Amino acid sequence: MVTTIEPEDVDPADRIEELLSGDNVEGAAELLADMHPADQADLYDRLDDAERETMLALLSTEARAQLLEHLDEETLEEIAQRLPRVELPRVLDLTKNDIAADALRMLPPAEAALALAQMKTASEVTPLLIHPDESAGGLMTRGFVALHKDMTVGEAMTLLRARKPLAEEAYYLYVLDARNRLEGVVNLRQLIVAERDVRIEDVMTRDVVSVRPDTDQEEAAHLLQHYRLRALPVVDESGVLSGIITADDIIDVIQEEATEDMYRMAGVGVKEWAFSPLRESVIRRVPWLSFNMAWAFAGAAVISLFEGTIQKVAALAIFMPMIAGQAGNAGIQTATIMVRSMALGEVKVSDIARVLAKELTLGAIKGAIFGSVLGLIAWVWKGNEVLGLVAGVALFCNMLVAATAGVLIPMTLRRLGFDPATIAGVFDTMLTDLMGFLIYLGLATLLVDQLT
Amino acid sequence: MVTTIEPEDVDPADRIEELLSGDNVEGAAELLADMHPADQADLYDRLDDAERETMLALLSTEARAQLLEHLDEETLEEIAQRLPRVELPRVLDLTKNDIAADALRMLPPAEAALALAQMKTASEVTPLLIHPDESAGGLMTRGFVALHKDMTVGEAMTLLRARKPLAEEAYYLYVLDARNRLEGVVNLRQLIVAERDVRIEDVMTRDVVSVRPDTDQEEAAHLLQHYRLRALPVVDESGVLSGIITADDIIDVIQEEATEDMYRMAGVGVKEWAFSPLRESVIRRVPWLSFNMAWAFAGAAVISLFEGTIQKVAALAIFMPMIAGQAGNAGIQTATIMVRSMALGEVKVSDIARVLAKELTLGAIKGAIFGSVLGLIAWVWKGNEVLGLVAGVALFCNMLVAATAGVLIPMTLRRLGFDPATIAGVFDTMLTDLMGFLIYLGLATLLVDQLT
Repeated sequence: MVTTIEPEDVDPADRIEELLSGDNVEGAAELLADMHPADQADLYDRLDDAERETMLALLSTEARAQLLEHLDEETLEEIAQRLPRVELPRVLDLTKNDIAADALRMLPPAEAALALAQMKTASEVTPLLIHPDESAGGLMTRGFVALHKDMTVGEAMTLLRARKPLAEEAYYLYVLDARNRLEGVVNLRQLIVAERDVRIEDVMTRDVVSVRPDTDQEEAAHLLQHYRLRALPVVDESGVLSGIITADDIIDVIQEEATEDMYRMAGVGVKEWAFSPLRESVIRRVPWLSFNMAWAFAGAAVISLFEGTIQKVAALAIFMPMIAGQAGNAGIQTATIMVRSMALGEVKVSDIARVLAKELTLGAIKGAIFGSVLGLIAWVWKGNEVLGLVAGVALFCNMLVAATAGVLIPMTLRRLGFDPATIAGVFDTMLTDLMGFLIYLGLATLLVDQLT
Repeated sequence: MVTTIEPEDVDPADRIEELLSGDNVEGAAELLADMHPADQADLYDRLDDAERETMLALLSTEARAQLLEHLDEETLEEIAQRLPRVELPRVLDLTKNDIAADALRMLPPAEAALALAQMKTASEVTPLLIHPDESAGGLMTRGFVALHKDMTVGEAMTLLRARKPLAEEAYYLYVLDARNRLEGVVNLRQLIVAERDVRIEDVMTRDVVSVRPDTDQEEAAHLLQHYRLRALPVVDESGVLSGIITADDIIDVIQEEATEDMYRMAGVGVKEWAFSPLRESVIRRVPWLSFNMAWAFAGAAVISLFEGTIQKVAALAIFMPMIAGQAGNAGIQTATIMVRSMALGEVKVSDIARVLAKELTLGAIKGAIFGSVLGLIAWVWKGNEVLGLVAGVALFCNMLVAATAGVLIPMTLRRLGFDPATIAGVFDTMLTDLMGFLIYLGLATLLVDQLT
């Protein structure tokens, strides 16, 4: 049976959820067994505590191991803690070993050590534990197939038949020397297409793109995408193959990094999603809004300096938000393009002069257009050409502030080793608010006699 | 030789660029031949017109075909138009046929028809041309390997050896019936691990996840990621296999969609990047800023209604931007989470009640916190408790406006068939500006006697 999945399809998980909550455990078990582990993972996320317990009990050890491969971090942690301690090592033995390492990292160290001691794959999983989670080493799995260059294609195929590697780990076969140093790579297609008695040395590709265990996961994602690979070998300083990163993990990294950038720009907690518990959302969003509020008081203090001027010319208040806001939005445009171009590797910190020159020119053009429009409208509307001049010039200058900030803030953050997206949008609006009020009300104060 | 690429590595393309601009064509040709087509594509992007001409001339037909597979849309269009008309059909025959279809779509119809008529792969490429670029049909390639269920594993391997499929297209082999309807799938690993005399029917997986040609590319990306597949078959209404989408194309879609969402939220042109020509950047950014400016005048008009009140109580102007801005930022937090959660398929339009209830509660909490802080500070600073009350209540109410808008705007855009990211952030700040001024200055006008 071929299932064509379309957006409108009814979710089969709904029926299992009903059966589970209605205590029809046999019915649920039957449907569960037919379900893809990725869909089981989605279902699990939606269940309450008691239902989760029941669902896990209905899955075989193999099914539990497969389920682990499709979970997000929080749920992986939850299941790792929920599984009976005697069962955990057996489940982890059957899952991809990068996932097993992730699960172990999430347990209290004593429990992780105990579980590891009982695992058959301990020797493969242990080396993965030393690498930070967001590095190539933390992403890799040890489950690669190693060949020797003197083998024939037929021998390699016999080896594969005996090893029965996991699907994700079998596409590339790595050719290692006697000291486990990476010499080349052969893919399954090359193996099948070649004659059986040809030596591996004569089919293998020697020019292999690889990363080090400490390479950042984002850099690894770039390379895999750039060269359109299905897996990326991780090689240590002496050239020894430490593990491989598979394309499915890279797809997750790409999604994760894009979400992070969007959330960081908006000042939202990186781990939040639409159904995060209320308490968590409060904890994640309020600190940044507090920071924003503190800066807004700085803006208020600037306006307060000019309270006397506003008292004399109340019409000034009308254009105040526009001068800050229009430049703020222009700055966010610039910052967004900077952040994304840096994330995609299209712009480096060394491009700063070229980018700044472009954005300043663009800022001047935008400033000239919108400054003139605002100036004219303010003049006609309020019947005062000096008010028009003050508003127009202030917007023009603030557009230049926005362009400078939009380029310099993300680039400075990157140079200082932070993620360039870190509240880049926020810093930008803060600056354009402060500078906008200062320039506009300052000019108005200088020319206050012509404004009344 | 194993190349470990690290972020700091010097770009070998720099040397070719030097050689090309210094007219050392032989040297450049030699280095180019050793370069991965993905790196050739990056180099090509950096060259000027004359250098591009030289570089293309130095590549063989095969190398040109491979280069096409690594280009972004604009460069693909540029090369398709640059290649000599007699050469184009031969280059397109050698590239993946989804890329060939993309290139043909970018030519004037008459030229595309002429090129197609001279292509050997015309029968494979033509069906791809009828599908829109951003659908599964526009993304798929016809280059799949088809098997019959009565074949043995050995026969299938012999077929593969004869067909020599492209690397990206060979991992899954599709089992079709006599009318080309998809019956199952076998991957290379299953084939190698199985005995040679076993029938394909006994190794194949019957439960195949597939999409229709008109499925949106984002939905296809979801499925491939969700089930951790390397390719996704595209099947028409009668069950006939039309083509396959490979994981490398999906990675591009994921990056593209994430960029689009970020840019749409900030109101930046979707195709822009840091080094887009100035003219293009102006054309892409100014329209949205104009739209923003028009709305800002609506905000100005609201403030203008209350000019008399501001004349009496100039201190009101101090807190005006903060009440609009703090709520605007809170709204962008909500909108960002909505947009991303919808993009990742975590939230559907039908979840509206649940999400709205959560965000309204959250808005009330944020409003209570920041409203009290603002109220107290305004009271102490300006020595007027009614001013504190007015500012605090206005911020509280505007936080509820922000929460409602942050949920409803992206969801309404999605329901109307637009991308939910489309300037969702902008609409949100517009509403919080307008409503913030209205509530704050309206309240102040009602209580103006106690404010002076």
